[in-house]
Amino acid sequence: MTPRAVDALEQSDIIVGYNTYIALIKDLIGDKEVVGNGMRQEVDRCQKAVDLAVEGNKVAVVSSGDPGVYGMAGLVLELIQKVDAQKRPECIVIPGLTAANTSAAALGAPLMHDYAVISLSDLMTPWNQIKKRADFAAQGDFVIAIYNPKSRGRATYLNEIRDIVMKYRKPETPVGIVRKAGRPGMNWTITDLEKLPDEDVDMQSTVIIGNSNTYVADGKMITPRGYKL
Amino acid sequence: MTPRAVDALEQSDIIVGYNTYIALIKDLIGDKEVVGNGMRQEVDRCQKAVDLAVEGNKVAVVSSGDPGVYGMAGLVLELIQKVDAQKRPECIVIPGLTAANTSAAALGAPLMHDYAVISLSDLMTPWNQIKKRADFAAQGDFVIAIYNPKSRGRATYLNEIRDIVMKYRKPETPVGIVRKAGRPGMNWTITDLEKLPDEDVDMQSTVIIGNSNTYVADGKMITPRGYKL
Repeated sequence: MTPRAVDALEQSDIIVGYNTYIALIKDLIGDKEVVGNGMRQEVDRCQKAVDLAVEGNKVAVVSSGDPGVYGMAGLVLELIQKVDAQKRPECIVIPGLTAANTSAAALGAPLMHDYAVISLSDLMTPWNQIKKRADFAAQGDFVIAIYNPKSRGRATYLNEIRDIVMKYRKPETPVGIVRKAGRPGMNWTITDLEKLPDEDVDMQSTVIIGNSNTYVADGKMITPRGYKL
Repeated sequence: MTPRAVDALEQSDIIVGYNTYIALIKDLIGDKEVVGNGMRQEVDRCQKAVDLAVEGNKVAVVSSGDPGVYGMAGLVLELIQKVDAQKRPECIVIPGLTAANTSAAALGAPLMHDYAVISLSDLMTPWNQIKKRADFAAQGDFVIAIYNPKSRGRATYLNEIRDIVMKYRKPETPVGIVRKAGRPGMNWTITDLEKLPDEDVDMQSTVIIGNSNTYVADGKMITPRGYKL
């Protein structure tokens, strides 16, 4: 967490966020007013934050990782646009460490070359579009960071993506799986495309698939930048 | 800068880095030993850091943004592999805020959907490969974050990439240009693919090209996540 994010919390009157994330920062919130709610209630939550800001409150909307990557920043900005111009509150997005980067650091240095970030959540994106994106990213030899790789309703998605990538990459291409990236209990496994289906991957995991040059040495996943050594 | 990065500097005996970056953190370094050098001397610098660590020093290698994205993390890990296993020093990569995310926050929320990160530096990557990657990213409708968009030796590269993206996206697709992302003097412009060639873009800029749904409202560049509003 950056000092800018801590400052923003301190300077806010009201903290709005998903209950699970609010719990992670409870020491920083003190006795400030909190508006928390559950999963899949993002629109309600952010609308409430905008309404409170229109009423004159300084409101901090909490998002995990980077609020600008599959987080709340876009939704808040979209909802603010619906407020009459004269009443529209100012909104500052404070960048954070997104799971791709936090996970990469744990694994070694897999994102040292061009990379693509893809979410497998099909709640708001058609599954066919997600598969097409994965195909293009695989063809382009991008390192691929996968968010929301699995949940109860989408148990096979990660394996379908793995099959797409294997059309273009060797079975021994390294794959890193990081669970709870940047949170207490973070842990990781390095495997390869071939063995990926045997691994334990859940909704809270981030999966990083190497490009054609990525290798594993001494337990670290490394994508060479191209320096002559 | 995260507290973890500050802690690492404080706990180190020797700080190694590119002179320009060392200057940015001189207040944090105090009177510690510093090994700085110039541009394109990355291998020398990181080899020196590894040698000093093998000798028993705690060494911090400084990199701008996220060391794991086109930074020094991979090079250090590659060089460490060349040290005899018994003498090999431990290396911890501390993730940071990379320019894509810092720039996105300044512009609004352009990275709210799947995105690709591409460097246009052809010092170590063939220009044809870079163009092919941009083509796949454009076809896949990824938001595209471009690093190292221009330098004296590569004045036309960004325009070539823009022409590739325009094969698949409308001329009015929003484009954000952020100069000095996350550093003193940061400033930005929002334009579109059509007018991009008229803009002032330098080596220190990050360019973010929206996907087919990205729009600009009230001076903010927003890529909708897909919530029904």
